[in-house]
Amino acid sequence: MTDHPSPAELVAFLDEMADVSGRAILPHFRSRMIVENKLGVGAFDPVTVADRAAETAMRTLLAERYPAHGILGEEFGREREDAEHVWVLDPIDGTRAFISGLPVWGTLIGLKRDGRPILGMMHQPFTGERFVGDGRRAWYRGPDGARDLATRPCSDLADAVLFTTTPMMLKGEERIAYDRVESRVRLARYGVDCYAYCMVAAGFVDTVIEAGLQPYDIVALIPVIEGAGGVVTSWTGGSAVDGGRVVASGDPRLHERVLALLARG
Amino acid sequence: MTDHPSPAELVAFLDEMADVSGRAILPHFRSRMIVENKLGVGAFDPVTVADRAAETAMRTLLAERYPAHGILGEEFGREREDAEHVWVLDPIDGTRAFISGLPVWGTLIGLKRDGRPILGMMHQPFTGERFVGDGRRAWYRGPDGARDLATRPCSDLADAVLFTTTPMMLKGEERIAYDRVESRVRLARYGVDCYAYCMVAAGFVDTVIEAGLQPYDIVALIPVIEGAGGVVTSWTGGSAVDGGRVVASGDPRLHERVLALLARG
Repeated sequence: MTDHPSPAELVAFLDEMADVSGRAILPHFRSRMIVENKLGVGAFDPVTVADRAAETAMRTLLAERYPAHGILGEEFGREREDAEHVWVLDPIDGTRAFISGLPVWGTLIGLKRDGRPILGMMHQPFTGERFVGDGRRAWYRGPDGARDLATRPCSDLADAVLFTTTPMMLKGEERIAYDRVESRVRLARYGVDCYAYCMVAAGFVDTVIEAGLQPYDIVALIPVIEGAGGVVTSWTGGSAVDGGRVVASGDPRLHERVLALLARG
Repeated sequence: MTDHPSPAELVAFLDEMADVSGRAILPHFRSRMIVENKLGVGAFDPVTVADRAAETAMRTLLAERYPAHGILGEEFGREREDAEHVWVLDPIDGTRAFISGLPVWGTLIGLKRDGRPILGMMHQPFTGERFVGDGRRAWYRGPDGARDLATRPCSDLADAVLFTTTPMMLKGEERIAYDRVESRVRLARYGVDCYAYCMVAAGFVDTVIEAGLQPYDIVALIPVIEGAGGVVTSWTGGSAVDGGRVVASGDPRLHERVLALLARG
């Protein structure tokens, strides 16, 4: 146990992080809790007791095991961001699904080394699903067993299934660019946050287009999608590590077409 | 065992229907199946092998147990629709979620007696959730235990969480009426079909507004929502049994406000 852990040790640690955060969250899912609102009256950005309890549990575990590692978490901010290893945590990605009782939220646990995402997990504690990747390989464990994850081939937009959280989040030029893509796909669906990216990795969704992401919304998912054979970039083809405008695709040929359409005009 | 079964016998039979349909469906969820398309090229209405296998399994069980009962099923149509008891079946409600790998589809199993819905279940075999109701009571069994279902109080649109499958399905006057409601609610979300109605029954969603429903999209859900204390009607306050334009609300006071807004203009 050192601050320079082996890849196998880190993968095992991811499972521990999922265990402690899942135990902190589940008692609050579908409970009749009070929803706090960190933006005050008029805005709607629910922060649940569960969110804070889970991030606290993960930070406590990190402080015990890897005290020199950095942390960027949704709820409690940044610590040692210049460390070689930095954990990027979103205890409940999909808070709107969570407060609506729907099992399509997830806990995102990512690890960057020297600024690059090298390991990530999406954990859904209610269904018992774990989607994990290290950029070279991605794998799954859930109620239907364990298996490797692989994206599916889909080079043509006319065959593609597209997800976005909601097109209403996209403004002005962003919305126009998004609509150019949406108008060409076979099926567009809204609203499942991190689950959509995992379904790209699993080969059931072809592309996800979003904007306004925070780093903790995407860092954990990059090694999963890349490990399954997919691509994650900004809308202009750069790194997606800092969030913002993000595209993830299962097939690199489709990804190029989506980027070209987003850029045109 | 007769063709005039007791309420308790019917509730036990619902569980058997859920067991056989779930066993038929699950091997196909997240498998790399070929998606058939019953409307041909250009439309997108996936009919899966799973859908047909599950309805066949339920019809076989019904033919053995209650041969005089009628059936209305999504896949294989109508039989003995003038019978006292008529089962209304949708093996996979939420086919788009299903083919995208998301666990927010469900099997709808409803029973009408003399034209009135008297019993219904939404079964989600992947998560192991069952939402059941008989119009007077509604209950749940899932990975987080068993309990009664009860809607939550919410009399004011400004506090309400609204779901619809997608506003893009609503055309012309329907869309204008829907938008009048959406513009007044706290949170609007899209895309989870039968799950949204179950979350009304469970007290996490306040109202669902849809149009273009088939009877098998709604009949099973009426006894669940009513049993939990909610209301399901057409947009004009009539019966929702035949589908079409449907509103379901957890709080009858909110329901009246939604109907008034839909009617205005």
